[in-house]
Amino acid sequence: MVEAANRRWCLAKYPEGIPGLDTWRLKTQEVAQPGPRQILVKAKWLSVDPYMRGRMSPAQGYTKGAGIGEVMPGGGVGEVVASNHPDWKPGDIADSMAFGWQEYAVLTPDVAGTSGVNRADPAIAPIQSALSWLGMPGMTAYFGLLELGRPKPGDTVLVSAASGAVGQLVGQIAKLCGARAVAVAGSDDKLAWCREIGFEETINYKTVPDLTAAVKAACPDGVNVFFDNTGGPIQDAALKNLAIGARVIICGRIAQADRFGKPEIGERLLGSLIVSRASIHGLLVFDWWHRRDEAVKRLAAWGRAGKLRYAEDVLDGIERMPEAFLRLLSGANFGKQLVRLP
Amino acid sequence: MVEAANRRWCLAKYPEGIPGLDTWRLKTQEVAQPGPRQILVKAKWLSVDPYMRGRMSPAQGYTKGAGIGEVMPGGGVGEVVASNHPDWKPGDIADSMAFGWQEYAVLTPDVAGTSGVNRADPAIAPIQSALSWLGMPGMTAYFGLLELGRPKPGDTVLVSAASGAVGQLVGQIAKLCGARAVAVAGSDDKLAWCREIGFEETINYKTVPDLTAAVKAACPDGVNVFFDNTGGPIQDAALKNLAIGARVIICGRIAQADRFGKPEIGERLLGSLIVSRASIHGLLVFDWWHRRDEAVKRLAAWGRAGKLRYAEDVLDGIERMPEAFLRLLSGANFGKQLVRLP
Repeated sequence: MVEAANRRWCLAKYPEGIPGLDTWRLKTQEVAQPGPRQILVKAKWLSVDPYMRGRMSPAQGYTKGAGIGEVMPGGGVGEVVASNHPDWKPGDIADSMAFGWQEYAVLTPDVAGTSGVNRADPAIAPIQSALSWLGMPGMTAYFGLLELGRPKPGDTVLVSAASGAVGQLVGQIAKLCGARAVAVAGSDDKLAWCREIGFEETINYKTVPDLTAAVKAACPDGVNVFFDNTGGPIQDAALKNLAIGARVIICGRIAQADRFGKPEIGERLLGSLIVSRASIHGLLVFDWWHRRDEAVKRLAAWGRAGKLRYAEDVLDGIERMPEAFLRLLSGANFGKQLVRLP
Repeated sequence: MVEAANRRWCLAKYPEGIPGLDTWRLKTQEVAQPGPRQILVKAKWLSVDPYMRGRMSPAQGYTKGAGIGEVMPGGGVGEVVASNHPDWKPGDIADSMAFGWQEYAVLTPDVAGTSGVNRADPAIAPIQSALSWLGMPGMTAYFGLLELGRPKPGDTVLVSAASGAVGQLVGQIAKLCGARAVAVAGSDDKLAWCREIGFEETINYKTVPDLTAAVKAACPDGVNVFFDNTGGPIQDAALKNLAIGARVIICGRIAQADRFGKPEIGERLLGSLIVSRASIHGLLVFDWWHRRDEAVKRLAAWGRAGKLRYAEDVLDGIERMPEAFLRLLSGANFGKQLVRLP
């Protein structure tokens, strides 16, 4: 089976601050054919995620960035159209973090870890779930909250970007732990959704006059767990309201996207940890990838039991990948940002 | 036995920023007599410690501040001069965190916890050690480093205020763990002492042109454990050089003493924890007080074995308590600041 063409978004330059649309270029090339023990997968859904900002840089983050001219890295899920691997046949659904912003990917199922290939089962959930609550964002919420946040029944769990890909799961898993979930987001629509899925209290960071006071009002006994997807002023407000022994999970810093690679100035608040005896933990979900099966199984069971609901924000067509990513950086998305391919 | 008079330093006002000498007033009162199951102790050594700044404030920290007119809280060690308690007799050496800045204290041995009374054994170490390496600062170093820092053999342990009451112990205990200790302090004399007691590398934060570069040069594989007694720019430089999985212990913030009660502005650096997957832990030694015996026993054994050396900075006379405290805030002290009474 020979496909005509593979359209792929390649990095055109390393942007400063918020990327512009000229950061990427859509190139067309012949569809590559799978080598020995490889498969060719046609994308059905592609993901955009905040971590991708780090890949648009020559600097070394937790991994190296993409090279200029290379396809943008990213997760995708699709249908196997050709296979040289005995475990995979055409029609199977495969997902991988190593897909890239492209229509066709040659994947190597024998690779282990975060570049590996997983089988998505449409009988369990719509296949795009492999990019959201049954995939990387799901694992981020699961391990970040349960292993680093360790909420106890009765704890107050504050979540920034609470209606986002990770945040909405954190709130619902916190509820499963018997904790009280408090949402911070930037629109009343997003916060209405947060209430619908179980958050007890909500804070619109764009409209409250005083964020620190708003967190205090919503968390009168202090914040026991703060799951931070944003950084910036929301983080400051949370750090000023930590309960004794609080756990803070630094998961994302989308509020600082415009400062990428540049210093951002704020209040020095770590001294207050001596009073709260709190701890702050950096989270990189890839550290937990060896326990992927545990998280996916548990999340799927909660989903089947009706205990996890999930908002998606879908754009159609590979042409819209840059737009989708920029929506994410500006907070225009409502729920997990995805791009659907025909 | 009736003593003539008890001179005691009482809080005269709540200072802003760095306290002035008018913060306290030396008052003379009759020596109180011990009640049932109490003892009267005549001070031989009094301690000044950075935490006392928090007590000179009406704000609630991890405990409440002293009231205006009340004796300044603080640790002391001295000789029992009268006892109504069967376990204590005149001539015994007693130390307590509940001593206060005064010549005579009535103490209650039956009280448990941080306000309790301990027996100092002059056969083990000079009795002022009960205020330093066999007391609260020793416990701070012991539990902070071993329980929160958890150094592994080969780790690099960076210590700020490295020649101070806590820092010099942290470096030596790090060595006992098989780690590499790096000292940050503000004079070449202090750093020469740090080298003498085993720190491998030293950084004079007052003279290096670029602190971040200096930390990087001294810790080329990154900082695995950062034991922070200062906050401020040294903390920033350390946070920019954390190794994967690093542990940061926030123990003190003496560099921010002039900002007490006011915001201090600096660079927002917590986002970098996503790359380093480091954790930051607030330390309050009182949380570990129930394990005091363990720490004192272990520290005493290391001391007997010649594995702990300790620099003291001694002023003579209760008149000099305010001066001693202010030396501490400005970093003028070399080693643990103590005041000796006749």
